Amino acid sequence: MRNLTMLMDYYELTMSNGYFEKGFKDKMVVFDMFYRKNPDNGGFVVSAGLEQLIEYIENMHFSKEDIEFLRGKGEFSEGFLQYLADFKFTGNIDALPEGTICYPNTPIVTVTAPVIEAQLIETMLLLTMNFQSLIATKASRICRTAAESGAVVMEFGARRAHGGDAAILGARAAYIGGAAATATVMADERFGVPAIGTMAHSWIQFFDNEYEAFKAYAEVYPDNCTLLIDTYDILNSGLVNAIRVAKEVLEPAGKRLKGVRIDSGDLAYFSKKIRKTLDAHDMKDCKIVVSNSVDEFLMQSLKKQNASIDSYGVGERMITSKSDPVFGGVYKLAAVQNDAGEFVPKIKISENVEKITNPGRKKLWRIYSRETGYALADLITMYDEEVNGDEPFAYVDPVKPWKKMKFENVDVKELQVPIFRDGKLVYDKPELDAIKAYVTEQLDHQIWEEEQRFTNPHIHYVDLSKKLYQIKEEMLAQGQGENH
Amino acid sequence: MRNLTMLMDYYELTMSNGYFEKGFKDKMVVFDMFYRKNPDNGGFVVSAGLEQLIEYIENMHFSKEDIEFLRGKGEFSEGFLQYLADFKFTGNIDALPEGTICYPNTPIVTVTAPVIEAQLIETMLLLTMNFQSLIATKASRICRTAAESGAVVMEFGARRAHGGDAAILGARAAYIGGAAATATVMADERFGVPAIGTMAHSWIQFFDNEYEAFKAYAEVYPDNCTLLIDTYDILNSGLVNAIRVAKEVLEPAGKRLKGVRIDSGDLAYFSKKIRKTLDAHDMKDCKIVVSNSVDEFLMQSLKKQNASIDSYGVGERMITSKSDPVFGGVYKLAAVQNDAGEFVPKIKISENVEKITNPGRKKLWRIYSRETGYALADLITMYDEEVNGDEPFAYVDPVKPWKKMKFENVDVKELQVPIFRDGKLVYDKPELDAIKAYVTEQLDHQIWEEEQRFTNPHIHYVDLSKKLYQIKEEMLAQGQGENH
Repeated sequence: MRNLTMLMDYYELTMSNGYFEKGFKDKMVVFDMFYRKNPDNGGFVVSAGLEQLIEYIENMHFSKEDIEFLRGKGEFSEGFLQYLADFKFTGNIDALPEGTICYPNTPIVTVTAPVIEAQLIETMLLLTMNFQSLIATKASRICRTAAESGAVVMEFGARRAHGGDAAILGARAAYIGGAAATATVMADERFGVPAIGTMAHSWIQFFDNEYEAFKAYAEVYPDNCTLLIDTYDILNSGLVNAIRVAKEVLEPAGKRLKGVRIDSGDLAYFSKKIRKTLDAHDMKDCKIVVSNSVDEFLMQSLKKQNASIDSYGVGERMITSKSDPVFGGVYKLAAVQNDAGEFVPKIKISENVEKITNPGRKKLWRIYSRETGYALADLITMYDEEVNGDEPFAYVDPVKPWKKMKFENVDVKELQVPIFRDGKLVYDKPELDAIKAYVTEQLDHQIWEEEQRFTNPHIHYVDLSKKLYQIKEEMLAQGQGENH
Repeated sequence: MRNLTMLMDYYELTMSNGYFEKGFKDKMVVFDMFYRKNPDNGGFVVSAGLEQLIEYIENMHFSKEDIEFLRGKGEFSEGFLQYLADFKFTGNIDALPEGTICYPNTPIVTVTAPVIEAQLIETMLLLTMNFQSLIATKASRICRTAAESGAVVMEFGARRAHGGDAAILGARAAYIGGAAATATVMADERFGVPAIGTMAHSWIQFFDNEYEAFKAYAEVYPDNCTLLIDTYDILNSGLVNAIRVAKEVLEPAGKRLKGVRIDSGDLAYFSKKIRKTLDAHDMKDCKIVVSNSVDEFLMQSLKKQNASIDSYGVGERMITSKSDPVFGGVYKLAAVQNDAGEFVPKIKISENVEKITNPGRKKLWRIYSRETGYALADLITMYDEEVNGDEPFAYVDPVKPWKKMKFENVDVKELQVPIFRDGKLVYDKPELDAIKAYVTEQLDHQIWEEEQRFTNPHIHYVDLSKKLYQIKEEMLAQGQGENH
């Protein structure tokens, strides 16, 4: 397995060496990973990447070459380098199961570990969760839009992905978010995301003419023949030759032309023209596949124009989340254990109000309507608080803190589950198809439609327990650090 | 070395199996990799990624497990699977040296190889070149803007990068484009991009108060102490404590505070305030480092406001090229060898005019003014044409094809260099610092400033030889494939 241990920010090493030198290496801390803003101004995020985070943590170790390299920097003590040589993650990690729908400012991953260990995993934790959550979220937007007009989505983005990991893990995340298949072979081999594909324009250009190219392909793949018909002229050449091959090569052998694909031109206009022509040739079962810079917004427009599309190949706009390519997950210190064993809450105040953190060791709950099963709100409490749904639970809506609010007669679920305990994996990683099904289950039956629309979605309530709210208010009032 | 052979689009395998079954496996073809549009509507691209493309080609092989996996798909012949098991790239590759400034529709990489080999490398060739060229280009925009006000740029983006490769190779590409350093340790270990870093907010929060945190850091790193001053309150707490540590801890030991960093707040306002205060405390040598969603546009605004910034940490907006995160390099068949050994030009026509390709086996030249050394134009000729700069060379400006144009009394350079010959690497890979210097040399002395501005840059001339232009015109007039 590839060792990505050194994929960290240099400041994690300078800080860790500092903690080590100052005698703090065994000090337990709590870090939360959360994000502040839904991509594309949407209503939610599909969390993804946990499986790769687990792999990273389990495999984390510094090689001799790594230590030698770090020694060469001349900034780290020999004691610390020895500590790194023996490094192993020994802490606890709790996280949302992969595929959980989640919201701004709620802890997605929480790390409770000795400070150096918690600090050294920051970059990979963020990188892994940020990227796959970004793509799973984008894919859910795109694939659910396609589904509204009965179309499926195939992930075609590898060539425009930001590197190899982005191609492979992006295909995985897109599948979690709803894509039916991928073009990327390695995503199939490694994760079982079904890989599909037929031909590029080069196949057609290679032959003396388009008909010969189509005929050759149909002869090699009579059972799985989708032809790309826009190399020269869609209606006057590509479609004519595709139908001719269907009639002359496939149908005499008892086979059918499975589909035609266009990768350029006016997708609405051409898809309707193609559908009409195919139907007139007794080829109602021949699917129309389109690609070319498609995303959820173009799909909505195509639906409005009654485009006739069975399947989308979505590339660059999904694999890069082009309309909003940065997922800003952060990793913030929430508590430090004192000598009495208590976790003392820590806060970051910042000049930008939206960057103020929720302090302390916490729990995240989801509150469901008992009648409908839909999620009413998320609730963050301190770690020692319990919520059961039967008894009234007073909370604070941080947007309207003056209102007296309580939950009562609701179903309640704690969202984070234990992943690591004392460095040991205690979590049974679900299959990829189970993760994908979990996303669908939530979006179909638990998450309001009003949170899923693209324009001004309902903002999911993220409430705080009175206890957490009071701790936060007090820390803000004290100004934590002012004049220290 | 990680084997990324299976990181390909499935259609490359279906096509290759088709070529194999139809007896075309030894047919030589020419593919060009080029792009159509400069990112951010800029005037040029910094090509990057060649070193990783070379590594991929050299390492390309299918493992037993790969073959087994492919056999399981049930679509490929045993003969083809055996071919794959023995696969080795045996063709020629020519490419622009890494760091070459380049332009739309000019061949960046050209592959001349048996059709299956040329087809199977498509995805990785595009993915590698697309991503690094995107980031190197973005970095050159950002770093040259920073330099206009005397500031340097450090690449801070790993946590927001699209996966591990994006973090590491993105740091490499950013360095090529002009970044002075990176936060990503692995980019230093692997490529020698200097890794730097000091502390996160967590360091400050960890301690009982900000002063203690700064003091501890200064004690461990007296020679390299940059303090992050925005955890609680920049002016009333962070800056006050930083100065106190400089005066109480560092200066008595003969050391200086190297810098202060802010990661939030109004960067213009605070940087000026901080500068004034530092100067008043006899700390003119203390640098001001800023971060927080900076890019070239914000830097221009900060310069206009006379912000006082010595160094930028640039994260998400560079590592994802946020304002334009897709680099649309494509890989198109340009020629197929006939039985007489001639390369017969091939063209893709398409419904979208901008997707029409330049047919044939070609050469790319850059034409320089003999007086100034600046690049006047690029010129694409057929492979058998020579241009020497002394004799008049008639060409066609494809935007104004009616004009009679010729180059005379110019310096001329063929831009592509041989990388592989018959599968053997014949290229001496330059050091990373040489690539970086080559970018600077071109942008300082060969590329017009008018091509480097951000708004409506001069569009670099990309001219065609009369011969190439005539071949293309004839193929378009024939309609290549219409009614075939």
